[in-house]
Amino acid sequence: MTDQVLAQLTLEEKAALCLGSDFWRTAPVDRLGVPAILLSDGPHGLRRQPDDGDHVGIGGSLPATCFPTASTLGSCWDPGLVRRVGQAIGEEARAQGVAVVLGPGINIKRSPLCGRNFEYLSEDPLISGVLGAAFVEGVQSQGVGTSVKHYAANNQETDRLRVSADVDERTLREIYLAGFERVVRTAKPWTVMCSYNRLNGIHASQHPWLLTEVLRDEWGFDGLVMSDWGAVHDRVAALAAGLDLEMPPKLGISDAAIVAAVRSGELDEDVLDRAVGRVLRLVERASSVGSGDFEVDGHHALARAAAAESLVLLKNSDDLLPLAPVDGDVVAVIGEFARTARYQGAGSSQVNPTRVETPLDALRDGVPAGVEVVFEPGFGLDTALDEELAAEAVGLAERASVVVVFLGLPAADESEGFDRTHLDLPANQLALLPRLAAANPNLVVVLANGSAVRLSTWDLDARAIVECWLAGQAGGGAVADVLLGKVNPSGRLTETLPLRLEDNPAYLNFPGEQGHVRYGEGVFVGYRGYDALGQEASYPFGHGLSYTTFAYDGLAVDVVGEGVDVRVRVSCGLRNTGSRVGKEVVQLYVGDPEAGVRRPTRELKGFRKVEVEQGTRVTVDFELTARDLSYWSTTHRGWVLEPGVFEIAVGSSSRDLPLATSVTVTGPPVLPRLDGMATLDEWLAHPDGAAALRDAVGVDADGNARGILGNPELLRMIGNFPISSLATFPGLGLDEGVLDRILGPS
Amino acid sequence: MTDQVLAQLTLEEKAALCLGSDFWRTAPVDRLGVPAILLSDGPHGLRRQPDDGDHVGIGGSLPATCFPTASTLGSCWDPGLVRRVGQAIGEEARAQGVAVVLGPGINIKRSPLCGRNFEYLSEDPLISGVLGAAFVEGVQSQGVGTSVKHYAANNQETDRLRVSADVDERTLREIYLAGFERVVRTAKPWTVMCSYNRLNGIHASQHPWLLTEVLRDEWGFDGLVMSDWGAVHDRVAALAAGLDLEMPPKLGISDAAIVAAVRSGELDEDVLDRAVGRVLRLVERASSVGSGDFEVDGHHALARAAAAESLVLLKNSDDLLPLAPVDGDVVAVIGEFARTARYQGAGSSQVNPTRVETPLDALRDGVPAGVEVVFEPGFGLDTALDEELAAEAVGLAERASVVVVFLGLPAADESEGFDRTHLDLPANQLALLPRLAAANPNLVVVLANGSAVRLSTWDLDARAIVECWLAGQAGGGAVADVLLGKVNPSGRLTETLPLRLEDNPAYLNFPGEQGHVRYGEGVFVGYRGYDALGQEASYPFGHGLSYTTFAYDGLAVDVVGEGVDVRVRVSCGLRNTGSRVGKEVVQLYVGDPEAGVRRPTRELKGFRKVEVEQGTRVTVDFELTARDLSYWSTTHRGWVLEPGVFEIAVGSSSRDLPLATSVTVTGPPVLPRLDGMATLDEWLAHPDGAAALRDAVGVDADGNARGILGNPELLRMIGNFPISSLATFPGLGLDEGVLDRILGPS
Repeated sequence: MTDQVLAQLTLEEKAALCLGSDFWRTAPVDRLGVPAILLSDGPHGLRRQPDDGDHVGIGGSLPATCFPTASTLGSCWDPGLVRRVGQAIGEEARAQGVAVVLGPGINIKRSPLCGRNFEYLSEDPLISGVLGAAFVEGVQSQGVGTSVKHYAANNQETDRLRVSADVDERTLREIYLAGFERVVRTAKPWTVMCSYNRLNGIHASQHPWLLTEVLRDEWGFDGLVMSDWGAVHDRVAALAAGLDLEMPPKLGISDAAIVAAVRSGELDEDVLDRAVGRVLRLVERASSVGSGDFEVDGHHALARAAAAESLVLLKNSDDLLPLAPVDGDVVAVIGEFARTARYQGAGSSQVNPTRVETPLDALRDGVPAGVEVVFEPGFGLDTALDEELAAEAVGLAERASVVVVFLGLPAADESEGFDRTHLDLPANQLALLPRLAAANPNLVVVLANGSAVRLSTWDLDARAIVECWLAGQAGGGAVADVLLGKVNPSGRLTETLPLRLEDNPAYLNFPGEQGHVRYGEGVFVGYRGYDALGQEASYPFGHGLSYTTFAYDGLAVDVVGEGVDVRVRVSCGLRNTGSRVGKEVVQLYVGDPEAGVRRPTRELKGFRKVEVEQGTRVTVDFELTARDLSYWSTTHRGWVLEPGVFEIAVGSSSRDLPLATSVTVTGPPVLPRLDGMATLDEWLAHPDGAAALRDAVGVDADGNARGILGNPELLRMIGNFPISSLATFPGLGLDEGVLDRILGPS
Repeated sequence: MTDQVLAQLTLEEKAALCLGSDFWRTAPVDRLGVPAILLSDGPHGLRRQPDDGDHVGIGGSLPATCFPTASTLGSCWDPGLVRRVGQAIGEEARAQGVAVVLGPGINIKRSPLCGRNFEYLSEDPLISGVLGAAFVEGVQSQGVGTSVKHYAANNQETDRLRVSADVDERTLREIYLAGFERVVRTAKPWTVMCSYNRLNGIHASQHPWLLTEVLRDEWGFDGLVMSDWGAVHDRVAALAAGLDLEMPPKLGISDAAIVAAVRSGELDEDVLDRAVGRVLRLVERASSVGSGDFEVDGHHALARAAAAESLVLLKNSDDLLPLAPVDGDVVAVIGEFARTARYQGAGSSQVNPTRVETPLDALRDGVPAGVEVVFEPGFGLDTALDEELAAEAVGLAERASVVVVFLGLPAADESEGFDRTHLDLPANQLALLPRLAAANPNLVVVLANGSAVRLSTWDLDARAIVECWLAGQAGGGAVADVLLGKVNPSGRLTETLPLRLEDNPAYLNFPGEQGHVRYGEGVFVGYRGYDALGQEASYPFGHGLSYTTFAYDGLAVDVVGEGVDVRVRVSCGLRNTGSRVGKEVVQLYVGDPEAGVRRPTRELKGFRKVEVEQGTRVTVDFELTARDLSYWSTTHRGWVLEPGVFEIAVGSSSRDLPLATSVTVTGPPVLPRLDGMATLDEWLAHPDGAAALRDAVGVDADGNARGILGNPELLRMIGNFPISSLATFPGLGLDEGVLDRILGPS
């Protein structure tokens, strides 16, 4: 069908298909029966705007289920659950006539300050990739497309349409592109959305390497690339780079530019045809999208279950949680957020929820009869201290059996469009907390925030802490379920909670200046950096407690094959040593202590969320491939597996790894290229090179190596000279004749 | 003369003049009476090799005074003293027939691991520039040239001939080039030596921006640029870039390439003529160089005085120093370094000293009659623990009145040619120290090391610590003078001594990999980084104690003029509140708390070493210029002074600043360029832009701003969009018509 339509299109019609027809729709071709299809915002729910909407996130949209944001949902570490959420969003999209859902957002959380972190999954590309792929599979199972975004290296809001993310290729490949690669290869998203920023000086929308070489030629992407809204600056350059669809359209400008470029010969019409073919194929794929209703109650229940599965129990001293209030107890619920739930972020992802469950209502519903749940706001949602509110809250805390304080970031503090400048909770909340702790030591803090906040200044005031992130419209019910023990928490951190902002490895460079942001920490993003710098964290990557306990045992590692075909099979036992059923996230980390490049101490290379009955034991298996052990080599222009020892560790967080061992992987050695710019050391490290060099330099009458080869002290000083640079150094035995012999005539 | 000779040269002769004639000499042109001149290594003394020398630093050279290395001499913070040392080296050069001394080395100490840090002055460009200039002035006052090196961004030994230092321009200008700029502009060195490394992908030897645009066109350098030994890879490209003299010469290859390039038209003969002219002028300038003797004893005495002025008293609990042994006391001198002085580093800078004074001999000479100085080596110079040596030393410590332990890095641990991999002293020394401290609490540690070592693991074991760095052939005498109070110490740290290697801001990136080293910390080098990261240090930049005490008072700041003509006059009082004469280094730091770029908390912008009699007070004055307050703006392609508040602080180290105030500097505001890529926020921040925009968008019937201008919440979210990117967003009031009106027709 696509080919037939393509053949009948005029140049002007083709050009028009490379832009939308309005803010949310592709261009139709009525005479050929090509309909417009509708695109709609929303990683964690739909923002399907009515036709008179304001388009950029402030005004209303049709009601839809607000599922937990990515910051929460990512913490579930459960691809199956993410797939179910994706499926539900796909159902809602189909019902609302939406052909493509603009998500998932899988950018890496480089700094906790990024204003859009709540839309992203993790500081780790494995989590982002695996869960992002699950989301895509879920949505697309409903005949609705996804748009994996924002491709690529869009890790901040500051100057987001102009800033150049200056990132070396190894860092891109291992950190910032790896999640996209996984989603594209495994889940085949219908579309990819380019990001606003520049990458190493070139706008992502006009970046041939990013949009074509890597995405299509290497990863085999066969879908459509669309722009983020407003990301295109030169439509013709973007088209040539591989950007198929401009959104929103510069009607009469971009289409005219495409026509003119084809006519002038500046743009090959084949390039245009390929882009148009992709638009047509997308339209064709979306043919099953219709209209109708969706399961409002069922989806709300799923949103509640998904949130409950994702909340992270950071701390639980003396098993204060789950709460077990009995008849006559007073449960103090303090904090405006208990009544005015903070459950999603601001910006293009903002959903008009079908309903909102507040923590306060859910707790009141959840406690046994005879338990009194009493609320005091304690503070307002601006940052000014209200002494009257605070005093009332302290009074309540004094007479309560237990105090649950709902703290968090006001909506005005974090949003798409700008970055935070510090990690602290508002001053009025920080002032209240120690007074509550002094009034009642049985104090639980429940946090609502889209990205990491600083805990180190108040952590000791709380006996238990539950991190909810932004948990969606049913987050209130979910947190009640966890607090009251109806759900055993099993969420795990997908981002490190640092002691101080300054500890973050991106601190010195974030968010850049004068149009550039230097990714100065390289691959040492998130826990990779905290580990490399030997820095303590408030709570490390992967951390999260349960109401039961687990014990690890029986690590077994088996290496099969070698080189690029190697498989490392890892298994271990996990026993539920507590008294109730619970879920553990078994995490597998790999380190390469001796490598040709500086590698992270350990990197997450596998995880499995498993449910274990109390008193029973399960076995968990992983299989690592060569890629899991490799680094990206810019000199070899590819993934390189260096044979040698690798460290394998398994446990419940990046810093709680009770099982550890090392394995040796064999394979062809990674050898330097032998030429004039190879150093003396490299020549000597290469078996062929060393032999040729020793042979050419020769030995003296006593059989000792001549020149530099017989002088280890001098060799240590000039061994890093390229061999050709030593030709003019007398006495080394490396004159031009010798070089000619080993290098061949120049 | 030069022009006349130039006019008579054949093309081949010209080409030949662009290379040396042998390892150490320029090419002569006998028929025209142009002699060869001799170049010779040595920032801290001459390494004039006899003609049968091995050329690269291992074999012998003619005896010369080994002055304190730059690591020590830099710590004097006294340009007058450095000038006197330079003058003495110039005298020795003239005596030995050396026309150009290959120094000073003024590269920034980016990481304490750099193997060549002992040849460099500081982690701060003001120190490097001021003291580097003083050295140049001193040498050149003798009719002998200098070669300021290694230009530029050569801050490591690892892969030094190939690695690309990837540094953004602001960082280059403010940190890595600033010292060179100061030396070139103020001291007019005869020559500059390019470095081995690449800078942002291009070899320094072939870097037109570095060698011509910046060095000559901007800074007005009128001397000769020579290559570091072996740094040239493409002679023609290097010549075109501004590299006049290739050393050592690729005879018959480079000259032939130049001739061929001129003949083929690839190289303009004018370029060659300019280079040859510079070679001829250098030869001409060197005409007074002769032969003869120099003041061996006088120079040794100067070396001793210079070292004594430079040693840094890091710690002196309970005024343990100066030692005041009396008749019958036993002074225990422990540590092989007391007997086998470590006083210079390995590599091309290695001097064959006229004599060497050991600390042990000097102490024995220096103590009063009746005091017994007893020596035990305690450890050997490899890292193996020798229990017998250790036990003897502990036994001696037990019976001594005071213990002076000489610790340091063995010569094998640091050298030109490779970098260290850790900061620790050898294990055998670290094992011995606590045993000595347990045996005798009156323990002084004297350090000999070319770059920072970790002190935090053993600092508490020493009541006093003297950092000597590598103090030259008379360092032994100097340390005796300080220990015994014959000299009141006045050296100050020019590099931070960190608590841990991981705290160093370059840690994650040093020394790079796969041919690149990312300067990921940007301008936050040394104390600029430790301050920005809020990290404690063992001893901060600028620190150093005296045997007397000083008090600061009376800070007065006066702002004269505005904008680029502004002068900020700073004065303060300094009183010697102790009981003996002493020297203080008064340090002036400037901070710009609100700036368009991220600036260091404080930066050294002035220093004065002053001698003050006990009980008296002096006034110290500084004058800051606009440049001292400016940053390098890549968008404005120049130094930018932002009017506003600047913080001025004066004191005795970067973290001991008893005097502080702030001043307001006025001047023209720094405004964004108003075009389609300027953001909405920038338009609104610009007085003209805001007016034009408000006018074009208009007001509604009630007089309220229309569209986006009336929607502050939305503005916060999309204010960072370039104004042209919002043309397709309906409802904002920024359609093409409005943009045409404010931008002019596109």
